[in-house]
Amino acid sequence: MDSRTVGVLGGGQLGRMMAEAGHRLGVKVAVLDPLGTASPAGQVAELAVEGSFRDADKIKRKSCGDPQRCSLHAAGKPEPEPLGDKKTFARGGSTETAHKHGVPMPRYMDTPTEASVREAGTLFGYPLMLKAKRMAYDGKGNAVVKDEGGVAEAFSMLGGKGLYAEAWAEFDKELAVMVIRGEDGELRTYPIVETVQVDNVCHTTLAPARVSPESAAQAAAAARKAVESLWGAGAFGVELFLMRDGGVLLNEIAPRPHNSGHYTYEACECDQFENHVRAVMGLPLGGTALRVGASLMLNVLGDPGGSMEETTKVLKQALPVPGAAVHWYGKAEARAGRKMAHVTFCAETMEELRRKVAPFGLLPGPAAAGAAAEETGAAAGEEAGGGRRPLVSVIMGSDSDLPTMKAAADILETFGVPYELTIVSAHRTPARMTAFATSLDH
Amino acid sequence: MDSRTVGVLGGGQLGRMMAEAGHRLGVKVAVLDPLGTASPAGQVAELAVEGSFRDADKIKRKSCGDPQRCSLHAAGKPEPEPLGDKKTFARGGSTETAHKHGVPMPRYMDTPTEASVREAGTLFGYPLMLKAKRMAYDGKGNAVVKDEGGVAEAFSMLGGKGLYAEAWAEFDKELAVMVIRGEDGELRTYPIVETVQVDNVCHTTLAPARVSPESAAQAAAAARKAVESLWGAGAFGVELFLMRDGGVLLNEIAPRPHNSGHYTYEACECDQFENHVRAVMGLPLGGTALRVGASLMLNVLGDPGGSMEETTKVLKQALPVPGAAVHWYGKAEARAGRKMAHVTFCAETMEELRRKVAPFGLLPGPAAAGAAAEETGAAAGEEAGGGRRPLVSVIMGSDSDLPTMKAAADILETFGVPYELTIVSAHRTPARMTAFATSLDH
Repeated sequence: MDSRTVGVLGGGQLGRMMAEAGHRLGVKVAVLDPLGTASPAGQVAELAVEGSFRDADKIKRKSCGDPQRCSLHAAGKPEPEPLGDKKTFARGGSTETAHKHGVPMPRYMDTPTEASVREAGTLFGYPLMLKAKRMAYDGKGNAVVKDEGGVAEAFSMLGGKGLYAEAWAEFDKELAVMVIRGEDGELRTYPIVETVQVDNVCHTTLAPARVSPESAAQAAAAARKAVESLWGAGAFGVELFLMRDGGVLLNEIAPRPHNSGHYTYEACECDQFENHVRAVMGLPLGGTALRVGASLMLNVLGDPGGSMEETTKVLKQALPVPGAAVHWYGKAEARAGRKMAHVTFCAETMEELRRKVAPFGLLPGPAAAGAAAEETGAAAGEEAGGGRRPLVSVIMGSDSDLPTMKAAADILETFGVPYELTIVSAHRTPARMTAFATSLDH
Repeated sequence: MDSRTVGVLGGGQLGRMMAEAGHRLGVKVAVLDPLGTASPAGQVAELAVEGSFRDADKIKRKSCGDPQRCSLHAAGKPEPEPLGDKKTFARGGSTETAHKHGVPMPRYMDTPTEASVREAGTLFGYPLMLKAKRMAYDGKGNAVVKDEGGVAEAFSMLGGKGLYAEAWAEFDKELAVMVIRGEDGELRTYPIVETVQVDNVCHTTLAPARVSPESAAQAAAAARKAVESLWGAGAFGVELFLMRDGGVLLNEIAPRPHNSGHYTYEACECDQFENHVRAVMGLPLGGTALRVGASLMLNVLGDPGGSMEETTKVLKQALPVPGAAVHWYGKAEARAGRKMAHVTFCAETMEELRRKVAPFGLLPGPAAAGAAAEETGAAAGEEAGGGRRPLVSVIMGSDSDLPTMKAAADILETFGVPYELTIVSAHRTPARMTAFATSLDH
């Protein structure tokens, strides 16, 4: 369908899912990885080249003989950061750029010396986040400095070069938004998700996020602004802090498909991997709307003891669950903490999702967590406290449904029928979703 | 995740989509095809072996060194017909078996000689279908005998051996149902779809089928019965005729993933390819419920002139449509009539689907086709004739919602608000869906 090739540097799970998207679109994906065809992406891609993913020319030569023909963009257009090669993305630079563009974020300062870290401690207080501008992901390249006595150790642990300090964010929740920029500059945002990190690694994401309409609007706006401050076509994972006052601050930007967007594979019209390939190839972007009511993604990490059987237990448990999808990454060894697979649970309503994931110890119910009232766009009839599940679920088809829907909801309330208004799946962007939620609040 | 290998004989698009499912599940898929790694499935599978797909031992030897370890089933269990190798499935035998099991079907008789075909013509009348028991798919292996004068030509065209004659079915619509049988014998059915054939090749499928609840129940029952009459784990595509009196007759059974189930990739909880792999590997089956309101699959065939540009035009037109997904099969040449790709359009309601596919000349609106009243489970408020689109779309969460829903619908009707009751996506099987639709009819 397309004679061009997308070159992917590094053959992990992100490349694997990009390769799958490439197959569907008829776009050839070539992967460069030390493991070659045995790498997670190499098992799937049409072409896998064995070699360091720092040697971009190798993949270009191997895949089409001519480095100029194998490019992320057609000739003459700027080539963005290598796809999937998160390690070469300069986080410090993007933080600075985003800051200049008015994206709300924790205070930060450049810390070329130990003395400047102590200065930051005086300015921002402790604990303090010390971060490396490069080579940072999954908590790597970050250190928490508890007090002035910890400065020297953190500074040297992170290599003592290219570091910056960030004020500690006392956040209530962590949020994330996937943003796609097309070759023509068009921006599309996926729904806002709640993320839960364990030991600095993504544990679960929940879509849609259970936040106030105002916070959702702020998160979407901040994510768009953050991506607008950077260049390049493709997917951007934007991580945010939801502060206790309901405001949001930028945490991280990853210029690539991101763990917090894995749920889009099942839950959205077009997944982040396909939209990423579409974007870098200059194809029209696909829809980003939810096509299910609610979705929870669970990361599956390698068992601490390295046992493959222990690692795959949760996957086997998930297989019989209706609406649960398993994604195995094809890694031969289950090293402790290694990202081995993920499971996406989908349901028509948040309540149904809760029931599905309860056996996995995930997403405690509203009675336990008291979270029902927080759900974006879910006006629970008489659910609060009692955990009574809605008998009727109403979904809107367009903007004009709102007055009607409200009337219908009132009637159900009059009859004492527990119900749920879902205003998610019909809408194209979180921004619109937010507008709906705001209208409903009035 | 699993150390066993699924061997696929023949590397076409069915194998391609099975290989994708295998990757997600961590099941190794090995493909044997004359085109090897260049075949549609070979491009995707972890292992592709070049060779005739009649040489099953070759793939077994190549993929794991030991033919006994590479099997569709664990050792000691019967091996079903080779996956994807539709050509070796004896249609005549299955027709006979299904007939013996009481599956309703057109009258038929064995026709070993020209004289017996004429005898069938006398018994059943003309036109008459003459069918080969083997090597039949996409209209190949079938011939319409218009009158007695056409018997000799049809008989010799089909090879004169292993033929049977079938009474002509004056059908109103063609339907299809994908059925999955697990290794333990569990049967799961996907929603009933309407299929449209052009020149004996599948052109579109529409889910859910716009048929009466009674016909839907008959179709689901016939499909289950047909599959119960056969052996083997995996996917079965059951094609049916919907007769003018609302009854259904069996047309064909394909013991494999089937074109009429491609829509399940986007539209259902677990697609037919993944469920096929799960079934043959003895894994728990995945959910078969719709997770969207309505879905239309369009086959994309090679342009009559063999032009790749002409062939891919419709795909490029589909890319920007929200909820449209493109599946390219990776075939190097666009031969006339060759299955090159498919597009699946998904929407929250049948009405929204109509609007999405209208620019493609598909699924004419209710005003034009007068089909609104036929839609399973869609009680269109004041839609009939005027094509007035529903303002409210209501989706049920469980069986117990029905009385409440009916009351809510009555209220909307009282206020003159056009609405749509969608009773599809919440339900696990077409059988349950039908029960709902029947209840609503009362």
